[in-house]
Amino acid sequence: MAGHSKKVSKKIGTAAGTLLHIGEKKIEKTKITIIDYDEENLEEKTLEFVDECFPYKDSPTKTWINIDGLDNLEVIEKIGIHFNIDYLVLEDIVNTTQRPKTEDYGDYVFTVLKMVYRNQKRRKFTIEQVSLIIGSNYVISFQEKEGDVFNLVRDRLRKDKKRIRSSGPDYLAYALIDTIVDAYFIELEHYDEKLEKIENELLRHPTPHTLQNLHHLKRDIILIRKSAWPLREVLSLLEREDSPLIKKTTHKFLRDVYDHAIQVIDTIETHRDMISSMQDIYLSSISNKMNEVMKVLTIIATIFIPLTFIAGVYGMNFDFMPELSWPWSYPLVWLAMIGIGLVMFFFFKRKKWI
Amino acid sequence: MAGHSKKVSKKIGTAAGTLLHIGEKKIEKTKITIIDYDEENLEEKTLEFVDECFPYKDSPTKTWINIDGLDNLEVIEKIGIHFNIDYLVLEDIVNTTQRPKTEDYGDYVFTVLKMVYRNQKRRKFTIEQVSLIIGSNYVISFQEKEGDVFNLVRDRLRKDKKRIRSSGPDYLAYALIDTIVDAYFIELEHYDEKLEKIENELLRHPTPHTLQNLHHLKRDIILIRKSAWPLREVLSLLEREDSPLIKKTTHKFLRDVYDHAIQVIDTIETHRDMISSMQDIYLSSISNKMNEVMKVLTIIATIFIPLTFIAGVYGMNFDFMPELSWPWSYPLVWLAMIGIGLVMFFFFKRKKWI
Amino acid sequence: MAGHSKKVSKKIGTAAGTLLHIGEKKIEKTKITIIDYDEENLEEKTLEFVDECFPYKDSPTKTWINIDGLDNLEVIEKIGIHFNIDYLVLEDIVNTTQRPKTEDYGDYVFTVLKMVYRNQKRRKFTIEQVSLIIGSNYVISFQEKEGDVFNLVRDRLRKDKKRIRSSGPDYLAYALIDTIVDAYFIELEHYDEKLEKIENELLRHPTPHTLQNLHHLKRDIILIRKSAWPLREVLSLLEREDSPLIKKTTHKFLRDVYDHAIQVIDTIETHRDMISSMQDIYLSSISNKMNEVMKVLTIIATIFIPLTFIAGVYGMNFDFMPELSWPWSYPLVWLAMIGIGLVMFFFFKRKKWI
Amino acid sequence: MAGHSKKVSKKIGTAAGTLLHIGEKKIEKTKITIIDYDEENLEEKTLEFVDECFPYKDSPTKTWINIDGLDNLEVIEKIGIHFNIDYLVLEDIVNTTQRPKTEDYGDYVFTVLKMVYRNQKRRKFTIEQVSLIIGSNYVISFQEKEGDVFNLVRDRLRKDKKRIRSSGPDYLAYALIDTIVDAYFIELEHYDEKLEKIENELLRHPTPHTLQNLHHLKRDIILIRKSAWPLREVLSLLEREDSPLIKKTTHKFLRDVYDHAIQVIDTIETHRDMISSMQDIYLSSISNKMNEVMKVLTIIATIFIPLTFIAGVYGMNFDFMPELSWPWSYPLVWLAMIGIGLVMFFFFKRKKWI
Amino acid sequence: MAGHSKKVSKKIGTAAGTLLHIGEKKIEKTKITIIDYDEENLEEKTLEFVDECFPYKDSPTKTWINIDGLDNLEVIEKIGIHFNIDYLVLEDIVNTTQRPKTEDYGDYVFTVLKMVYRNQKRRKFTIEQVSLIIGSNYVISFQEKEGDVFNLVRDRLRKDKKRIRSSGPDYLAYALIDTIVDAYFIELEHYDEKLEKIENELLRHPTPHTLQNLHHLKRDIILIRKSAWPLREVLSLLEREDSPLIKKTTHKFLRDVYDHAIQVIDTIETHRDMISSMQDIYLSSISNKMNEVMKVLTIIATIFIPLTFIAGVYGMNFDFMPELSWPWSYPLVWLAMIGIGLVMFFFFKRKKWI
Repeated sequence: MAGHSKKVSKKIGTAAGTLLHIGEKKIEKTKITIIDYDEENLEEKTLEFVDECFPYKDSPTKTWINIDGLDNLEVIEKIGIHFNIDYLVLEDIVNTTQRPKTEDYGDYVFTVLKMVYRNQKRRKFTIEQVSLIIGSNYVISFQEKEGDVFNLVRDRLRKDKKRIRSSGPDYLAYALIDTIVDAYFIELEHYDEKLEKIENELLRHPTPHTLQNLHHLKRDIILIRKSAWPLREVLSLLEREDSPLIKKTTHKFLRDVYDHAIQVIDTIETHRDMISSMQDIYLSSISNKMNEVMKVLTIIATIFIPLTFIAGVYGMNFDFMPELSWPWSYPLVWLAMIGIGLVMFFFFKRKKWI
Repeated sequence: MAGHSKKVSKKIGTAAGTLLHIGEKKIEKTKITIIDYDEENLEEKTLEFVDECFPYKDSPTKTWINIDGLDNLEVIEKIGIHFNIDYLVLEDIVNTTQRPKTEDYGDYVFTVLKMVYRNQKRRKFTIEQVSLIIGSNYVISFQEKEGDVFNLVRDRLRKDKKRIRSSGPDYLAYALIDTIVDAYFIELEHYDEKLEKIENELLRHPTPHTLQNLHHLKRDIILIRKSAWPLREVLSLLEREDSPLIKKTTHKFLRDVYDHAIQVIDTIETHRDMISSMQDIYLSSISNKMNEVMKVLTIIATIFIPLTFIAGVYGMNFDFMPELSWPWSYPLVWLAMIGIGLVMFFFFKRKKWI
Repeated sequence: MAGHSKKVSKKIGTAAGTLLHIGEKKIEKTKITIIDYDEENLEEKTLEFVDECFPYKDSPTKTWINIDGLDNLEVIEKIGIHFNIDYLVLEDIVNTTQRPKTEDYGDYVFTVLKMVYRNQKRRKFTIEQVSLIIGSNYVISFQEKEGDVFNLVRDRLRKDKKRIRSSGPDYLAYALIDTIVDAYFIELEHYDEKLEKIENELLRHPTPHTLQNLHHLKRDIILIRKSAWPLREVLSLLEREDSPLIKKTTHKFLRDVYDHAIQVIDTIETHRDMISSMQDIYLSSISNKMNEVMKVLTIIATIFIPLTFIAGVYGMNFDFMPELSWPWSYPLVWLAMIGIGLVMFFFFKRKKWI
Repeated sequence: MAGHSKKVSKKIGTAAGTLLHIGEKKIEKTKITIIDYDEENLEEKTLEFVDECFPYKDSPTKTWINIDGLDNLEVIEKIGIHFNIDYLVLEDIVNTTQRPKTEDYGDYVFTVLKMVYRNQKRRKFTIEQVSLIIGSNYVISFQEKEGDVFNLVRDRLRKDKKRIRSSGPDYLAYALIDTIVDAYFIELEHYDEKLEKIENELLRHPTPHTLQNLHHLKRDIILIRKSAWPLREVLSLLEREDSPLIKKTTHKFLRDVYDHAIQVIDTIETHRDMISSMQDIYLSSISNKMNEVMKVLTIIATIFIPLTFIAGVYGMNFDFMPELSWPWSYPLVWLAMIGIGLVMFFFFKRKKWI
Repeated sequence: MAGHSKKVSKKIGTAAGTLLHIGEKKIEKTKITIIDYDEENLEEKTLEFVDECFPYKDSPTKTWINIDGLDNLEVIEKIGIHFNIDYLVLEDIVNTTQRPKTEDYGDYVFTVLKMVYRNQKRRKFTIEQVSLIIGSNYVISFQEKEGDVFNLVRDRLRKDKKRIRSSGPDYLAYALIDTIVDAYFIELEHYDEKLEKIENELLRHPTPHTLQNLHHLKRDIILIRKSAWPLREVLSLLEREDSPLIKKTTHKFLRDVYDHAIQVIDTIETHRDMISSMQDIYLSSISNKMNEVMKVLTIIATIFIPLTFIAGVYGMNFDFMPELSWPWSYPLVWLAMIGIGLVMFFFFKRKKWI
């Protein structure tokens, strides 16, 4: 839950024109890496100063500028000015509570997405905002912190000369978005396994711990859903975009990612259904157990309470209790008690409590 | 649950251009069977090598090429190259977590559906992906494994010279899709019977086992629903398709299948309603039983506990207890105890607990 | 539940061209009745042979051909051929699991509806499929079995020369559909009364039987809803139909039935809301009763258990128990016990348990 | 619940041309009142005979004809014939189960609404159907019985010469509809207070009676919702109507009522949410109380049952029980019992049950 | 809950032309403040008389007229007359139960919004209606009472000469609306923290108090939702407005606020999901606790009740009980009792109750 609408309050009333990073401070230093490529050559470097990336704007090669860390607003602003990016767009980039969306600004297409991935170290899933600026010969990606799901795209850039390096920045953007959408599948797959495990637990021996796990799962699914739901709209918009920046040939790829996004949403909805079904199961199974506990108590108590009463009666110290001196009364009382016990037993048997 | 988003992770970051089978490995060998027909002749054979099917592409006869097993990517790729199938389509074919959809690629129409059928041996229902490539004079169908619901279509091809053999591949595709949609009915009919059985159990003597059955049913319905829901869209698209590959005369048949698909969806929704209604019944009936158990305990306990107390009092060993030596006290105590018992009894009677 | 997706399995794989009755076998013999009318004359007869109805196709008078029973496929097929009815339409007519729909075939308009009525004898509501073929001067209606809600239409035909007999077959079709929609109201009215009765029971003295009644009601409502829901679409389509077979003057009547259909659907939804609200009431009232039962047990047990303990203590047989020989200890013990009882009593009083 | 689909059954099969009042018989005599006005003059009278209102149809002044009571079908029919009203419209007027709707018949606009008001005497809310016929210089309103929310409109007509009397019948119709929509607010305000009261009860000391009140509230809200929901559609239609009967200047007023209607619907939905939230609270609070009751029982029982057992042991009459004759055994047993009691006490303390 | 449909009843039947303040009386005196600005100069003052603001209507500078308090209808009316505001608009301004909406009246654009903010003193969130009249060179804002979220806009006006002061009143209106929408975030952030706290409580040691907190939270969220939901529509309308009053350059800013509004709605829905998930957790955890309580009772009772019975038997005073005089019977009885205790213990162990 934490943080998903945090720190917005800072912004209130600030001029729409004063950049302010909204979100957790995540890394110390803003890190800028560049992959500059065309069909023949590929150059990768990590920049020291933001100014070094400016020449790539007008170079004939295609360039992917990746920025990790949004705290250094000066850097963001400089890029904004140099690449001619609207101030509102910069605001959306540094406001990491932004809803996924896509907008065509003529010179560039701006897309915000949520990247879901599992942090290796903390073994927790993370939702991170990724903003893409798709220009005529560059893609700029902004991420909240280091670590992403793009390594395989980098590998493809390095190796696959044919398709990705011969295509324009729109194809690169597609590759990045595709990777982000696929990452949802990995995450959901993870939940798939968890769900299965919890289901088994539920049907065998549910504990309050099982319920807590289910609850945490549900909460995560709710958050992932919030990130995934707008994907449908974003990708459908991107696909139907008639910007010259998105080439016709790329459209069919975007259509493909769109299909995947719908699949992601379908799967999330199915998960939600499953979880709520399991919660019902849990509630029922607690009720069942309580019922069983009650039955045991009732059987024991209702059999022995009357017998104890009889024993109590003949434990009374009245001077005149004729039964006490009859020779057969003791065995008769035993017989009576056994009889009552058996009657009770068959009564419960008939009621299917035993 | 198992497997419905499995193995996708493998794919992440792979170039959109590297074929990878996503899904369970299901059969050892890819099996290719061919039915080549026109109004006069029909030829059926099982191919040894994939190349044998290539000549049928340009033959004047109509051909149904059926491929069982998607593990042998080489085979799929060869077919793809020869029949001029887009790489993205091939990817969708081998990715068996694909969502049902239909796309017109000019030369051919591509349709993915989920086939639901009950495996005879394992007595479990199976959801399997079927992809259809509808060309000008051929239909290629890709299935995950052997065993399908198409035997009756094969029979019709063998016997019914008039309609199916005189019509084009679009009619064959219709026949296949119709069979797939009808198979949903069979499956749902099966659940219909199960639901009825569970309902009877629920109203007579519900057990935790009944609940588990209901839960499994619900889970299956959720999965079937996920497969069936997109049918509406797919079939409506196919019907409205103005591809020259789908003839006008076939449209009314597709309209018919579309109606059936909506009926399938309606029935699934009705089933879901029924199941959730039954779950409520189950919860209520447990509460009812617990209530009954509690009543028995309460009646017995509240009648005998006070009586036992009285017996206990006269079992005390004080030297000075004048009642002990009175001759009538023993019968009087009995009277008192019977009196208290009767009062309690009528109290419970009035409260309608007995 | 039974039967609503039954027997569909028979059909699988049959050529779209092999007529097969899907549904329960309902009457022995197919019964064909004819009402032939114009403004002046009216002729009613029951036919022996299906061929007798053929001349009416081209007669100048208007004709209503009613067929009860769909098992005799030969009869259906003959009518189909003579009246030039599409094979797919015939299939839909004999498949009684058909979803309500309407289709314009140029020569005739085809409409399928579900008729809901209460069987007098079995005191059970029945859902029966009615298919209408509306031609230029005839209406053919197909029903699953004898017994319908159309008697009042027949009466109007016999008596009301002005409107119904002077209008075309489209008006007759309207009259039939209107009667079918109104029959939903009768059925719902019936449930209205039942609901009211159950509600009273629920608020006074709910029993598990009440819950079962509620459940049966809910199940029926779910099934009626499944039949009624598509009415909206069917009637809206019929009304907007620009077929020459449906005259402009009839449109306003169809608009009227459409309004009624929406009212039916509204009422069904209201019923569903009411039922689910009652189920909540039921669950709460069980919990309430259990709470009350628990309280009685707790009060009696917690008052007497400590007292019984005290009595038990002075029933011990130790040789050295000084209290036993004190002359006031017996009355003091009584005082103590009464005191404890009172304390408990006021404790419960304060907690509002008594 | 009662009556909201009552008596419809009477109508079944009647010719669409036989007027029949559907609904409760509500007043003895149909009462016709007239307010005839223009900017200068206003005439109010109660008519003896229906014919007296006919001259107003073609008079230059504007006239509001109000009819209370729909049982006297002759009267309705006469008005229908004289004012040229379609038969279907007359049917809808007398059928008081009609769904709110609006229809343009060229000569007049027909609107049906549901009026919600609180009957002063019976202190119950009533839903009554109001039908409006808006002609070129008259408005005819049909109500089920005497008593309505229109008195303030009458006052305005008497006093406010400027606006209402100088405007046409469309403005009068607007004023009536506005009053009807505002009456929903009054009713909802009433429920607002009730809800608040029930909420307080729920959080302080919920009783089964609270639940019943909540249930009655919910039922009323469901019924009001059924009446209010179609208002949105009706008013949106009226506003967009391009009938010459509804002047351009009136449109902005209708837009205003439309906004109010949406507000009514919003408020109803909020109420529903609140009620279902309260039901959850109720269920939880019962569970809480039961939990508390159980704890008290458990504490008392588990403390004293073992002690009673010990006392029972030393109450046995065996000849050879060495402990009985030891001088310290009695105080030691006391110590043991107190010890066990304390252990239990601290056990419960740690479990936070005390 | 209180007040959200209060006092509407007063209005019923009033001529649409009689201004009436609907809502709580909130401040004594209507307070009018003015900020008159252009790029060079800024003048701020609080007016004594309403007439003082009239000259600003036609001055070349831009003016923001803010009115706090809607009770002084005379003032509102005077402004209405002078600024040529429609009577219906004035009614909507003083009716503080108005639903958020926007309307273009040619001369001015009228927008109603709900402002959500946390009252510093009472520590309660408040929903207050803000109406904006956006004219060609002025913005008039009407608020229910003093205190708002606009201080930062005032600051920007005072300091930021470039953007806000050089832009027209449409930009000012945007700045106000943006501030209102951002205020929802602050409020939701507040609930975010509360939710997290409650969640922790729920999973550790839930109390009935936790539930009450959750309920209050839910109620607040329902009310905020009712205010926020129409924002989507209002802002989308404003953005697409082609009024000359809203300049093209402002559209992109409105698009930005629109995105924020959708984000607000998303977050509210997520909160609702979370809350209902927590309610389920609460119910389950009560059931769990009850189950535990029951188990303790059952274990103690079922172990000791039979033992007490045995002790009771040998406490009977029959003359002929041979066991009593056997020397080993006392230790044997102890052995038997310990044996029974152990059997019970292991029974419970196996059932996983201990």
